[in-house]
Amino acid sequence: MSKRTKAVILIGDGLADRPVPELDGRTPLEAADTPALDSIAAAGECGQMDPIAPGVRAGSDTSHLAILGYDPHQVYTGRGPFEALGVEADVLGGDVCFRCNFATIKGELSLSPEGEFVGAVVADRRAGRIAEGTDALAAAVDGVVIEGVKFHVKASVEHRAALVLRGAGLGEKVSDVDPHDEGIAPHGARGGDEASANTARALNQFVLLSWQRTKDHPVNVARLAAKEPPANILLPRGAGVMPRLQPFSEQHGIRGACVVETGLIAGIGRNLAMTVPRVPGATGGVDTDELALARAVVDMLADHDFVLCNLKTPDLGGHDGDWRGKVVAAQKLDNLARYVLGHAPAGLHVTITADHCTPVAFGDHTGDTVPIAITGPNVRPDAVKAFHERAVAAGGLGRIRGLDLMPILTNLMGTQEKYGA
Amino acid sequence: MSKRTKAVILIGDGLADRPVPELDGRTPLEAADTPALDSIAAAGECGQMDPIAPGVRAGSDTSHLAILGYDPHQVYTGRGPFEALGVEADVLGGDVCFRCNFATIKGELSLSPEGEFVGAVVADRRAGRIAEGTDALAAAVDGVVIEGVKFHVKASVEHRAALVLRGAGLGEKVSDVDPHDEGIAPHGARGGDEASANTARALNQFVLLSWQRTKDHPVNVARLAAKEPPANILLPRGAGVMPRLQPFSEQHGIRGACVVETGLIAGIGRNLAMTVPRVPGATGGVDTDELALARAVVDMLADHDFVLCNLKTPDLGGHDGDWRGKVVAAQKLDNLARYVLGHAPAGLHVTITADHCTPVAFGDHTGDTVPIAITGPNVRPDAVKAFHERAVAAGGLGRIRGLDLMPILTNLMGTQEKYGA
Repeated sequence: MSKRTKAVILIGDGLADRPVPELDGRTPLEAADTPALDSIAAAGECGQMDPIAPGVRAGSDTSHLAILGYDPHQVYTGRGPFEALGVEADVLGGDVCFRCNFATIKGELSLSPEGEFVGAVVADRRAGRIAEGTDALAAAVDGVVIEGVKFHVKASVEHRAALVLRGAGLGEKVSDVDPHDEGIAPHGARGGDEASANTARALNQFVLLSWQRTKDHPVNVARLAAKEPPANILLPRGAGVMPRLQPFSEQHGIRGACVVETGLIAGIGRNLAMTVPRVPGATGGVDTDELALARAVVDMLADHDFVLCNLKTPDLGGHDGDWRGKVVAAQKLDNLARYVLGHAPAGLHVTITADHCTPVAFGDHTGDTVPIAITGPNVRPDAVKAFHERAVAAGGLGRIRGLDLMPILTNLMGTQEKYGA
Repeated sequence: MSKRTKAVILIGDGLADRPVPELDGRTPLEAADTPALDSIAAAGECGQMDPIAPGVRAGSDTSHLAILGYDPHQVYTGRGPFEALGVEADVLGGDVCFRCNFATIKGELSLSPEGEFVGAVVADRRAGRIAEGTDALAAAVDGVVIEGVKFHVKASVEHRAALVLRGAGLGEKVSDVDPHDEGIAPHGARGGDEASANTARALNQFVLLSWQRTKDHPVNVARLAAKEPPANILLPRGAGVMPRLQPFSEQHGIRGACVVETGLIAGIGRNLAMTVPRVPGATGGVDTDELALARAVVDMLADHDFVLCNLKTPDLGGHDGDWRGKVVAAQKLDNLARYVLGHAPAGLHVTITADHCTPVAFGDHTGDTVPIAITGPNVRPDAVKAFHERAVAAGGLGRIRGLDLMPILTNLMGTQEKYGA
């Protein structure tokens, strides 16, 4: 009698908002013209969702982990690995990751037999907030192998970079090389256990090499000529290990894909062994081609049971305090949803929601609830007719959490094992 | 000032459903004429309940544990012990339980000094799906004692049976005797620790004895004469220990009774040291005498503070895909509730709910919410006037979990200890 269905979750990144005075107290989602989203709400079950728990300000990483059915309180082991994913670094389970600064040191650096840095001091922890050239500097040390450890460096904005260590027997209990102060030498990294001590020893050699390979780099020659502080060393801090996450297909018994724009969420998808297609035209900016994302969703449904799709645009409006941009972004999401509804196979479950609230008046993520609507076979339609923060509060889903969503969907999809007899 | 009240929970087993096309998108509960249930909803507080958590497909065992205030994630140790309860086997905390098949072996079975079965192979793991005579075969080995371990065998449907081991120092880390294949010998059970090794040794002797005592049993003589494969051995698998559950009266500080029809829930009640009366006329089938259950509820209230009552009929309609049967079953529950309301002592709290959803279109349990209504002194009535899945979603209880119910009731009953000062 049972029949398996497929499901899609469409996420407007940071879509939820608070009342905006310029919109007469409506939210951007409430003010936007979103007939496709409203049709999902009208045909389906609606409610409010706390991505993590009531009031908790979720990151996109912790929220997507929860929505995909992984408890961030168990698997989120610090920002390092997820920040590395966010700058498109290649990070796999077991990799030890650091946040780094490109910095300026003065003097002739060397490493003592005891593993201490001597001969030079940190002159500028941010290398004058260097804006350009860090990609080339990162390339000078990216991929080196020291004592069996491969070092992957990826430049981020300004002086920031991600450092990813891969190899057998790595440890994450590694102290910071960054001395968090100027006028003193970098700290020699130390390990809290044997594996971490080995990791720290290789890391110290890498830091020395970063100085050797960048101090006379053309980027720094030019900076010196312009009387700017050279970015002549990498100072790692905040060690963290990327957790080994159970593949999505094993966790839920269904094949899943992630159609997303940002490196952070793509990286989570890859670590869950989900299919993460490249989508030409998906820029992650306000100019992104939302229909390209929609087509990729429909393509993925051909041989996957489940697709998560994230449209980044609404979050940009929120961070920029741009309510007009956020209204347009909501309509972009509506456009995306309309295409999916119009081209999806029959009997598809479509969920529309957000990963967190990014109010234009706050400019960053907040812990308010996000609206959610689920349509498709077997749902119990409620009286809600519009998809926005206020309307959905009267819906039949009530108030759920991000971690509840996959069980709710696999229940509707007919793919979940029974718990008990 | 405080005054203690009593409470009843009336559970329609599998009562909740999804929209049924033949009922114009209503559920069977919505379509049924249930004035007594509606009067409870109208006078009381209503809401939705997730027996375990949102979306999770509950069994009747895990759901009843939660509703009675025991977290199944802590006490539910596998299906074996609860399946044994389900076939009316006598199971107590600490018993090690197995699921068994009556099977057919060919050859002269013996047990080597190393604890391996030799001389015979499994010819049919299900003994031709034997339909009759297994009660007599089970009786041939039921109650034997080997190395201080008492073996209790209870036949179930077709070739299935439950095996319960009771004794001091038992272990549950016992590998399967069932080889899960034919043409090979049964596996000698092994233990994962010392207690389990002792248990495995006794189990192997029991399995040998099951062959010795059934191979020439009249049931098998008749089967051989009819050219049917003999059910001449028991093959245990899936060891699990019945948890030692804290008595209900200690957990909640009130005297409780279970007026139920199925062995599974009766067994849970007995393991919680609740009173579990025999109810003549309660068959667990569609012909059950619901007023006999209702009278037993009222009787139990004379000297108990709390009674849980489960009517099995709605679940049967769900499993059979019979929406007409489920409408009738909802009316049977209404009849039961009407009697309780009419004969109960004044000031009684009456809760009406389901243990899970068994949609007629799915034919098995699903993880949708179930409706709940609580009436009696001190509740805050809401605007809900009818008791069904859709109507209660607007109620004052919001969305609660099975584990929330006993605290909600003992709070209303005035029997709960304060948490804090």
